Amino acid sequence: MPATSTLVLVHGFWHGSWCWSEVIPHLAAAGRAAVAVDLAGHGLRARRPRWLTARPYDPEAVRAEVSPVGGVSLEQAAALLTAQLERIGGGRPVTVVAHSAAGPVLMRVTERRPALVAHAVYLTAYLPASGLSAAACTRLPEAAADQVAPLLRGDPARTGALRLDLATSDAAYRRALYEAFYGDVEPGLAGAATALLTPDGPIGIMLGTTTLTRDGWGSVPRTYVMCTADRAIVPALQARFVAEADAAFPGDPVSVVELDASHSPFLSMPGRLADVLAALG
Amino acid sequence: MPATSTLVLVHGFWHGSWCWSEVIPHLAAAGRAAVAVDLAGHGLRARRPRWLTARPYDPEAVRAEVSPVGGVSLEQAAALLTAQLERIGGGRPVTVVAHSAAGPVLMRVTERRPALVAHAVYLTAYLPASGLSAAACTRLPEAAADQVAPLLRGDPARTGALRLDLATSDAAYRRALYEAFYGDVEPGLAGAATALLTPDGPIGIMLGTTTLTRDGWGSVPRTYVMCTADRAIVPALQARFVAEADAAFPGDPVSVVELDASHSPFLSMPGRLADVLAALG
Repeated sequence: MPATSTLVLVHGFWHGSWCWSEVIPHLAAAGRAAVAVDLAGHGLRARRPRWLTARPYDPEAVRAEVSPVGGVSLEQAAALLTAQLERIGGGRPVTVVAHSAAGPVLMRVTERRPALVAHAVYLTAYLPASGLSAAACTRLPEAAADQVAPLLRGDPARTGALRLDLATSDAAYRRALYEAFYGDVEPGLAGAATALLTPDGPIGIMLGTTTLTRDGWGSVPRTYVMCTADRAIVPALQARFVAEADAAFPGDPVSVVELDASHSPFLSMPGRLADVLAALG
Repeated sequence: MPATSTLVLVHGFWHGSWCWSEVIPHLAAAGRAAVAVDLAGHGLRARRPRWLTARPYDPEAVRAEVSPVGGVSLEQAAALLTAQLERIGGGRPVTVVAHSAAGPVLMRVTERRPALVAHAVYLTAYLPASGLSAAACTRLPEAAADQVAPLLRGDPARTGALRLDLATSDAAYRRALYEAFYGDVEPGLAGAATALLTPDGPIGIMLGTTTLTRDGWGSVPRTYVMCTADRAIVPALQARFVAEADAAFPGDPVSVVELDASHSPFLSMPGRLADVLAALG
């Protein structure tokens, strides 16, 4: 049996377990078992809207069609992750790495079931203050430079999703998507990743809130991996997340590690990212 | 350190590391570390042909465009898997599970570098006889009922690929694809998997041949997991593979396990498949 905890890797919106496939072999080389899971509504749990493959391309449907994963709530996403952690850990706590929009899901799980989590790691993730939603954080002044927001299509209140138009042939849109997510990633690799994205992130995950307590979320060791070249969750917003967490739980600060990476270090620097994760408890 | 070898899971043509994401948590629950990798030209290593996203849909381009991964040879695929096994194992042999067209890749690696492989597991995989190509096996009488062959588009000698038309809106084609690969898989899940497929499997992997020797391939314990409801690599062909291997290496038979599954037990029965794999050395 390994002396260290198993790592569970949770991707953010629009991605899937596939995004960690270059990281996990490096972790294995460092002696760390790691399991990548699909977030609710993503990867093998994604269901595609009709507009994605409809012909001809219909921009009105892109804006208006209700998402087949639009009903997924933060509570449902947390229930799925809880079940995954229980299965993977088999009664022992695991170290969970949450990227981007997986942050609120990990926060909810850690608050409700702290014994499941040996260490909570936020990789350039949403880490809203107690009782605040991730959606509200996107409206903070520190989020003003967020390059993902201009890429979203349709009204989430109508579609149920934060939606990327993965059907468009608009070269400017595709270029902006690349820059928002994959600015330091080799273009061929970024293209392969883009082709694996799913278009809809369930808005419920961003709208849910969790009240953080000292005995719940506050009782689990936590690390924030800042990505200093991130154009999706920009460094100013990441810094605010850490500062607010530290203000709320004084004397028990978040450990911070920095990577000079875009939003996607799992693609641009998988070995470096694995080094950081392997060094965690 | 785990007492058992790490499992390395290698998907077949058109799939990616993502196809194992429901299996790996079950393996972790059983105490087995498992790492899913991308085969050469697949997953994050896929590069998409232009026709896949071109508008309007151009069936002539589907038939004629040279694949961006068409140059990948069996030797290159084996070199990649060798490097992955070396990294993951860190000097210790690993148990490798090869699905479908990953079979010839594992055969080549096992023949050339038997010390890397603790146990070679063929999950309804191509297992051609010594010196025979997997492509030649698709023309055997036992392969006559193969339901994938009618789905292939274009001439591999021209495109470099075994190509699925993942851009078509032809409902009959999509239904046939479902039945060929995912006949026992819940349709919503099969749809999510289909959306993650890449269209081109490098024909070089199917054309390469490996001469099997007693000190190479023959020296590594081997198991064949037969899928008795498979419509891609049909049971008659799977049985021929096992019979020919046993005839070539008498007194050292392939261990056989049966699953009442389609070509995709990683989707239809991930827990059962994990039970089978976890029980292997």
